[in-house]
Amino acid sequence: MHSIDQRFGLDRRVRLPTPLFLDSGVTLDGVEIAYETYGVLDAARGNAVLICHALTGDQHVAAAHPRNGKPGWWSRMVGPGKPIDPARHFIVCSNVLGGCGGTTGPASIDPATGTPYGMRFPVITIRDMVRAQAALLDHLGVDRLLAVVGGSMGGMQALEWAVTYPDRVGSVVAIATAARHSAQNIAYHEVGRQAIMADPNWRGGNYYADGNAPVAGLAVARMAAHITYLSEEGLTAKFGRRLQDRSAVSFGFDADFQVESYLRHQGLSFVERFDANSYLYITRATDYFDLAAPHDGLLASAFVGTRTRFALVSFTSDWLYPTTEARRIVRALNAANAAVSFVELASPHGHDAFLLESPEMNSVVDGFLRAGESV
Amino acid sequence: MHSIDQRFGLDRRVRLPTPLFLDSGVTLDGVEIAYETYGVLDAARGNAVLICHALTGDQHVAAAHPRNGKPGWWSRMVGPGKPIDPARHFIVCSNVLGGCGGTTGPASIDPATGTPYGMRFPVITIRDMVRAQAALLDHLGVDRLLAVVGGSMGGMQALEWAVTYPDRVGSVVAIATAARHSAQNIAYHEVGRQAIMADPNWRGGNYYADGNAPVAGLAVARMAAHITYLSEEGLTAKFGRRLQDRSAVSFGFDADFQVESYLRHQGLSFVERFDANSYLYITRATDYFDLAAPHDGLLASAFVGTRTRFALVSFTSDWLYPTTEARRIVRALNAANAAVSFVELASPHGHDAFLLESPEMNSVVDGFLRAGESV
Repeated sequence: MHSIDQRFGLDRRVRLPTPLFLDSGVTLDGVEIAYETYGVLDAARGNAVLICHALTGDQHVAAAHPRNGKPGWWSRMVGPGKPIDPARHFIVCSNVLGGCGGTTGPASIDPATGTPYGMRFPVITIRDMVRAQAALLDHLGVDRLLAVVGGSMGGMQALEWAVTYPDRVGSVVAIATAARHSAQNIAYHEVGRQAIMADPNWRGGNYYADGNAPVAGLAVARMAAHITYLSEEGLTAKFGRRLQDRSAVSFGFDADFQVESYLRHQGLSFVERFDANSYLYITRATDYFDLAAPHDGLLASAFVGTRTRFALVSFTSDWLYPTTEARRIVRALNAANAAVSFVELASPHGHDAFLLESPEMNSVVDGFLRAGESV
Repeated sequence: MHSIDQRFGLDRRVRLPTPLFLDSGVTLDGVEIAYETYGVLDAARGNAVLICHALTGDQHVAAAHPRNGKPGWWSRMVGPGKPIDPARHFIVCSNVLGGCGGTTGPASIDPATGTPYGMRFPVITIRDMVRAQAALLDHLGVDRLLAVVGGSMGGMQALEWAVTYPDRVGSVVAIATAARHSAQNIAYHEVGRQAIMADPNWRGGNYYADGNAPVAGLAVARMAAHITYLSEEGLTAKFGRRLQDRSAVSFGFDADFQVESYLRHQGLSFVERFDANSYLYITRATDYFDLAAPHDGLLASAFVGTRTRFALVSFTSDWLYPTTEARRIVRALNAANAAVSFVELASPHGHDAFLLESPEMNSVVDGFLRAGESV
């Protein structure tokens, strides 16, 4: 199917034929979605697996990034011989709505004006991201997903899929995630947004014309966020108080400590690959996320009648989306009589654990998906 | 003694008669120290208690702030009928070296140039802060302290006092603190420093002449730091996902959530009372703090032979300086055969707990100090 159908393969784009209706009430015309597919859709169209990426991820989940050549961000989970395997699955991953990897976002040209949207781009939600993915699946001829799989913000999308399109999702794998953003989650995102908006180069989001982007503010936002992706024990094990290329402190403000040098590098490299306005919009979408909100705070009500199977995975040292949030989802699913399995995995790597080598995580996902395929 | 000796009382300043020798090797001339005293030094000069303030604290520990009229920052602990009581103790609290409350810091005039130091101010350490306090006590005629008491960075100074001047300290009360800054602690401070330095108004620290200070960067630094002073559970209890002055989200970037509004307020109010360069220097001092470093990492060696009594207090939800760090200090003190008592208090308020109403903390400090006085 790949060789004869240009819809399938690496580095694809589609312009949606119909407008996208957003939670804000705004209608977005001419939405483009950048995506990749791996494997072949089987004759019964029953082997499709959607991978949802995290805050700053992209569609290059299992193939080398076309610009920097780096391996796919989840090639430990997706690929030949992995739990999600192109030999068995038709795998789809798209850049989220509002992103900067090719899908329509604030850096895209507004067809109404011929200039980038900037902050005229509508505020979007996790559900809007999912709606865009559903439109992509329509384009690909996929009515029903064998599974939706994602970690962090990708896990939010996976959960939202089961709520918004219950008949289109066989299984959900939601890793290192939550059904709502906590006050602390919102607080960290707000720090990042204020750092961007405080950068004089931000200029109300109108920085595309001259290319003078608010990179200093975006780097600070990334540094603050990056700390939340790691654990205290992980940082101590990796860096401790070790000095960077020196035997004694400098009594200055250079990066004396390895952890400072590492953080600065994280900030500087991030701004090369990410758009500051996209960061504002996507963090806002996660802050708005609360699956229970339309149900008077009763999360179980969001899942009433669901026939989707769920697997939840959390990590012991993840304090961004801690196990307590996963358990809250599990309790709600139990109350809704849903089929749910849950495991908390031991890891010192904090929230980032879901992106790292984890035989246990792979084993859980593999077993859960195979059980669903044999039904 | 108060009425006849201008050294004692509220809102005092002294210029040190001799240079201050710093850990960096730099000698600082003409250091001024801003301080307050409460109570009367007894005839035996044995009732002096030094209070050390935290990162952004000041010398106004128990009296109204002369500019804004707010009560002293630790008037729950220090005052009539409190564990540290001017009726019984001669209480001293000074603004730290490098601060911006009147003690010499980067905003002060460099006598060598007649202009503010800015970033020509030498990088200082917690021990340098303690040296300045010791010089102040010389001025006040206090040879030996009944006790040194502090929380957070104040606790670091208290511990440093026992190490640097073991014969001058009877008791140390160190609350919500650590004997070193962890990689995560350093990382958060580095984010704050980068936020300040990324502000174009910072200009290498030379912003005093026109008064255009890097307030946007400093506000972001404060917001990021403020989250670390609270606990996830505290933020959830106080704010949760409650909206600010609206019944639905705005689909915009205003402060929809109460926690956003609160954080923004924390940032904006902070810049009115704090100097950005001081923030750089004082965070650097805490990052450099590691009592075990001169002893090949063996903390116990720092306390060998000590006759000082120690009380350590930690709070269950403090993740900035968690109980594990307090226990590390206690183990080291035990190994050094020091007299030490330790208690972990239950609190949902995170690191900030030491500044809040806590009858248990007051009871611990009161009992510990009284036991020392009866010896």
